[in-house]
Amino acid sequence: MIRIGIVGYGNLGKGVENGLSYHNDMELVGIFTRRSPETLETSSPAYHMDDLKNFKDKIDVLILCGGSRSDIPEQGPELAALFNTVDSFDTHPKIPTYFDAVNKAASDNKNVAIISTGWDPGLFSINRIYSEAVLPEGDTYTFWGKGVSQGHSDAVRRVKGIVDATQYTIPNEAVIEEIREGKEVHYDPHNAHSRQVFAVIEEGADEERIREEIINMPDYFADYDVVEVNFISQDELNRNHKGMPHGGKVIRQGNTSATEQAIIEYGLTLDSNPGFTAAVNIAYARAAARLAEEQQYGAKTVADIAPAYLSPLSAEEIRKTLI
Amino acid sequence: MIRIGIVGYGNLGKGVENGLSYHNDMELVGIFTRRSPETLETSSPAYHMDDLKNFKDKIDVLILCGGSRSDIPEQGPELAALFNTVDSFDTHPKIPTYFDAVNKAASDNKNVAIISTGWDPGLFSINRIYSEAVLPEGDTYTFWGKGVSQGHSDAVRRVKGIVDATQYTIPNEAVIEEIREGKEVHYDPHNAHSRQVFAVIEEGADEERIREEIINMPDYFADYDVVEVNFISQDELNRNHKGMPHGGKVIRQGNTSATEQAIIEYGLTLDSNPGFTAAVNIAYARAAARLAEEQQYGAKTVADIAPAYLSPLSAEEIRKTLI
Repeated sequence: MIRIGIVGYGNLGKGVENGLSYHNDMELVGIFTRRSPETLETSSPAYHMDDLKNFKDKIDVLILCGGSRSDIPEQGPELAALFNTVDSFDTHPKIPTYFDAVNKAASDNKNVAIISTGWDPGLFSINRIYSEAVLPEGDTYTFWGKGVSQGHSDAVRRVKGIVDATQYTIPNEAVIEEIREGKEVHYDPHNAHSRQVFAVIEEGADEERIREEIINMPDYFADYDVVEVNFISQDELNRNHKGMPHGGKVIRQGNTSATEQAIIEYGLTLDSNPGFTAAVNIAYARAAARLAEEQQYGAKTVADIAPAYLSPLSAEEIRKTLI
Repeated sequence: MIRIGIVGYGNLGKGVENGLSYHNDMELVGIFTRRSPETLETSSPAYHMDDLKNFKDKIDVLILCGGSRSDIPEQGPELAALFNTVDSFDTHPKIPTYFDAVNKAASDNKNVAIISTGWDPGLFSINRIYSEAVLPEGDTYTFWGKGVSQGHSDAVRRVKGIVDATQYTIPNEAVIEEIREGKEVHYDPHNAHSRQVFAVIEEGADEERIREEIINMPDYFADYDVVEVNFISQDELNRNHKGMPHGGKVIRQGNTSATEQAIIEYGLTLDSNPGFTAAVNIAYARAAARLAEEQQYGAKTVADIAPAYLSPLSAEEIRKTLI
């Protein structure tokens, strides 16, 4: 059995707790939180973060479920010095620096730390690597959605007069269709996606002023060709827009000869963004435990790990049933 | 530079020869054939197979481009004793036995042999492994096409009265749509695909008899719900049906919680089946050269090789640009 610890009990931590039930070679040792552990609504063992150091010999892999903005950059290197870890650090431009910090901590202390798993970074990264290696002459296009962007939903909620809101990122299907047909497209994230807002406003608030403020919000909405703003009741928002669906596609269009094209398309449709990210974290926890057994210490990304490490099957079973 | 040798100069061998031009870290040393080398229509250096043994120190990786029925089972173990090799052996049920034979030859002689690359087996296998590790509770569906099946085209050509023929395998889009929507489907390769034949017949041949013979052909057509037979002229066949397009999809439908699903879809649309298989072979030739440098000898499948080994980029560049 691979003994798992969870650090942080937000949506991702809950997703890991729940997802572990699908794997019979893993067991949850405990959830570690900065809150009072008795306040967590869970039937799993919960402990304060301060107790984590006492679990050094009781946990094989720690899954870090905090946020990428402030939790993971600090916890990643700190905990990789003590445990094998898996995280889904997703601030793309900071991955190289984060890798170096975690790599030092993990290597110095003979641990394995797999960083930036999940789907983007994560499974999408894997697909970019394979597709570009196979089709070196070509273009890669990434689309996100349809799905809820927490960052954009938060931004809308900060507009004066708004009580609650959900923002969906929606890929432009017409652009996707052109890429699938092998056409040359002018891709720009701002024409390749539209943004759809469902907002609840204070009674008597000025809809036009709010709409304008959202549409013209720099960084978040101003650059997009299509921004749709809908005003709805809190009831309707609660009923229809409190889920966390997401997904996306990575499409590579490339040539195998001067006159012959190939299209590689990888797509995800997820009822729960954190639930799926957790599922990927768990598969990489298995890889982390195996790499540690093989003493392949240090930080790794999804690029560095062979597919077989994620599977519960033996190499023989994989050759027999999945190749 | 990685020095490449090609064994066999059919469609796949030509695809590798052509595809190498997209990779500036590789060079083609020679094409090896059982025919008289001067009869090959190529501007690349061509040699007789008997000369291959003299290239032991001049070739880093040999790409085996013969057929899976009789060439590769014999050449694979034989050549893995002399060279690092890559092949696209695709007789799924025989992969375990073939692996063992190649593994012994490669290990005993300190070579690396990557078997069964290509797309199925190959990239499809990789996707089955990742998807099932991430979503252990769920179902995997594989669809092939729209594409030309050489085996079925050959079978049709053996029917008395037929001069020439092309057979397309066509996936059932309605079934695919249901899977994408997360519905439970009854999948059986025979209802999930239809078969479309374009045949040229001898003057005066009996269309009805030929149609019946095709539709009822055991193993190839009899079990399929939909078999469409079209009689056309040789001109039309030559003009519209002499390409080798193919493709397919691997779709995993699984749960991330009792109430939440995730759909992972991987799809290929290929103008040239052998051209794309060649492109995958070439990327794995890079992996073979690197594994040999690291002295990781023996046979490997795509399951055993980390994505980074296929990429021309360094680990740092991958973290910076593709993760």
